[in-house]
Amino acid sequence: MAKVGIVFFSGYGHTKKQAEAVAAGAGGVDGATAEVFEIDQDGNLPEGAWESLAAKDAIIYGSPTYMGGPAWQFKKFADASSKPWFGRAWKDKIAGGFTNSASVNGDKFNTIMYFFTLSQQHGQVWVGLGLLPANKKENGPEDVNWTAGFAGAMSISPADASPEEAPRAGDLETARVLGERIAGYAVKTRG
Amino acid sequence: MAKVGIVFFSGYGHTKKQAEAVAAGAGGVDGATAEVFEIDQDGNLPEGAWESLAAKDAIIYGSPTYMGGPAWQFKKFADASSKPWFGRAWKDKIAGGFTNSASVNGDKFNTIMYFFTLSQQHGQVWVGLGLLPANKKENGPEDVNWTAGFAGAMSISPADASPEEAPRAGDLETARVLGERIAGYAVKTRG
Amino acid sequence: MAKVGIVFFSGYGHTKKQAEAVAAGAGGVDGATAEVFEIDQDGNLPEGAWESLAAKDAIIYGSPTYMGGPAWQFKKFADASSKPWFGRAWKDKIAGGFTNSASVNGDKFNTIMYFFTLSQQHGQVWVGLGLLPANKKENGPEDVNWTAGFAGAMSISPADASPEEAPRAGDLETARVLGERIAGYAVKTRG
Amino acid sequence: MAKVGIVFFSGYGHTKKQAEAVAAGAGGVDGATAEVFEIDQDGNLPEGAWESLAAKDAIIYGSPTYMGGPAWQFKKFADASSKPWFGRAWKDKIAGGFTNSASVNGDKFNTIMYFFTLSQQHGQVWVGLGLLPANKKENGPEDVNWTAGFAGAMSISPADASPEEAPRAGDLETARVLGERIAGYAVKTRG
Repeated sequence: MAKVGIVFFSGYGHTKKQAEAVAAGAGGVDGATAEVFEIDQDGNLPEGAWESLAAKDAIIYGSPTYMGGPAWQFKKFADASSKPWFGRAWKDKIAGGFTNSASVNGDKFNTIMYFFTLSQQHGQVWVGLGLLPANKKENGPEDVNWTAGFAGAMSISPADASPEEAPRAGDLETARVLGERIAGYAVKTRG
Repeated sequence: MAKVGIVFFSGYGHTKKQAEAVAAGAGGVDGATAEVFEIDQDGNLPEGAWESLAAKDAIIYGSPTYMGGPAWQFKKFADASSKPWFGRAWKDKIAGGFTNSASVNGDKFNTIMYFFTLSQQHGQVWVGLGLLPANKKENGPEDVNWTAGFAGAMSISPADASPEEAPRAGDLETARVLGERIAGYAVKTRG
Repeated sequence: MAKVGIVFFSGYGHTKKQAEAVAAGAGGVDGATAEVFEIDQDGNLPEGAWESLAAKDAIIYGSPTYMGGPAWQFKKFADASSKPWFGRAWKDKIAGGFTNSASVNGDKFNTIMYFFTLSQQHGQVWVGLGLLPANKKENGPEDVNWTAGFAGAMSISPADASPEEAPRAGDLETARVLGERIAGYAVKTRG
Repeated sequence: MAKVGIVFFSGYGHTKKQAEAVAAGAGGVDGATAEVFEIDQDGNLPEGAWESLAAKDAIIYGSPTYMGGPAWQFKKFADASSKPWFGRAWKDKIAGGFTNSASVNGDKFNTIMYFFTLSQQHGQVWVGLGLLPANKKENGPEDVNWTAGFAGAMSISPADASPEEAPRAGDLETARVLGERIAGYAVKTRG
């Protein structure tokens, strides 16, 4: 089995819904399993998570975009990953990423780029979204990749929308597709 | 008078409309003048433009986002600016930037970041948009900064929208505000 | 008087030396004062620092580059700055940045770009290093801007060098020049 | 056989030497072939190159860093790749990148990030350098990855060094390792 881990932080629940959609996509692939690891409000992983991550074929990173980048709790996790970094423990594992923020564009690109930069510190192989954008006049938030990420999955949750209201259907389906694509790639390349 | 130059490339006319909005904003400021310089399809500036740019207090960069960055025609201009770079001719001039693309998010952030990187090669001082985003459920493309740029002005022109249809009102007003802010800053700091 | 604040985190003391050089440069400018604020190991500012920062004309950001970006302690500060962000309290303040890491290149660029992204969230005006690089065969770590930053000051402290040994003379002088340039700009534009 | 294509632009010959090292590394892998495609001074590929690239398993991008990003000639190639982009012709191909500039740090990171951004527009899978940096006091330009790239191979050619003198031994070996790693990954995942 190809094993996919999803490490994420969520401040108010929107990014958690996105993470669950990524996990549903990954776990739905024949020959793959998906497991989520939620970083807590102090920036720590659940008990045993570091050991579990070490056994994964793919690690997908997720965080809201706060003040132009990943939340500090995610960065605390990233800094703590210097231990597997020294030992090259995550080298050649597949990587991917997703982010949510309130604004249409905002600085989501920067958060995805940070996930990529982290993955390259680890020597991981990056698999992005692989979708064209839905960018015609008729398109809207119900369409897959209307939000239009390339290197990863992006979602928009308006500032006054609860996690029940957002991310919206198109963004959640985009997150699901990211999980599916990465798990499919993990299965294919696991040999 | 504080003199603002706007150097841009436009492939199909959408970015040109955005450039005109920036120029209208800058030119409308008491004590400021605005002049646009359109890079042609071969990546060249109009006759006399390099000399005019040398006399500006602010240079604002604009380009569509093509394949994840500024159009090659803009980059050809940027590479040719190595001549004023060597002589530090643009040092301390104010800088800013704007970009248009068909997708909601896409890689517009990267284009703005390139403009910033170019400006820092030249030792320029960067002035961004300075606006909060319009990011509530009720907001849409008619609102100022719904597209939600921070470091510069962004606009969305759907792939099947003509330059008469897009950028839309909110994005054009955002571009106008960018020009106004930069010209206002140029007037204030010119002493 | 133009007031310059320098907010930084330092893990082992190298970035602190860089911060002190920036402060020396800023404080040495006629008509300017410089004050440093060190973020602690838990990501918190000293008592009263938020109020002091609110009164500054310029805020300069500093952090080591860890795992491809600013340390999580710095990011915790950045996330906490969402309070002045909402109130636009730092709008139009001057911004700048510096970073240190063990590797020659590494991902220092990304850390500086994050500082810039943060500054643009706040509507600040970015002033970079403004220096040409020392990039001839004869140049080395004793030369100003041999490390070759543009948007900010960079320094290299080899992994086995103590804070007494590194950053080296050229990098510390580069940091001093950054402080001097930003303070000089603050004095000039304060009117 | 796994087929690796290397598309690059070189202004003065330094990046060409780097490209040749990447090709030597890739071509030296059992079960892999390497072919280089040099973009000319007008930004055009050799006759038949687009068809050849379409048949590759991996496409590696290379350019000097000029004015903070890839040379315009490379960007012209990137913009022209919108044709395979529309048809998703390069989706799932492996990608990687390398860059050379005169300065120690400079904006090389930004050029590599552009290559990554381009690759994600195409839905490619990114394979970076995978090396730790040589970042101790004793290290120098003769060491592998002293220049310290992560997402791609970087090289430093001082402004007054001919292509016979630079890139230096460590940077050329780093380029070779990048080619070897990408070709090895292509062989492994080709099934």
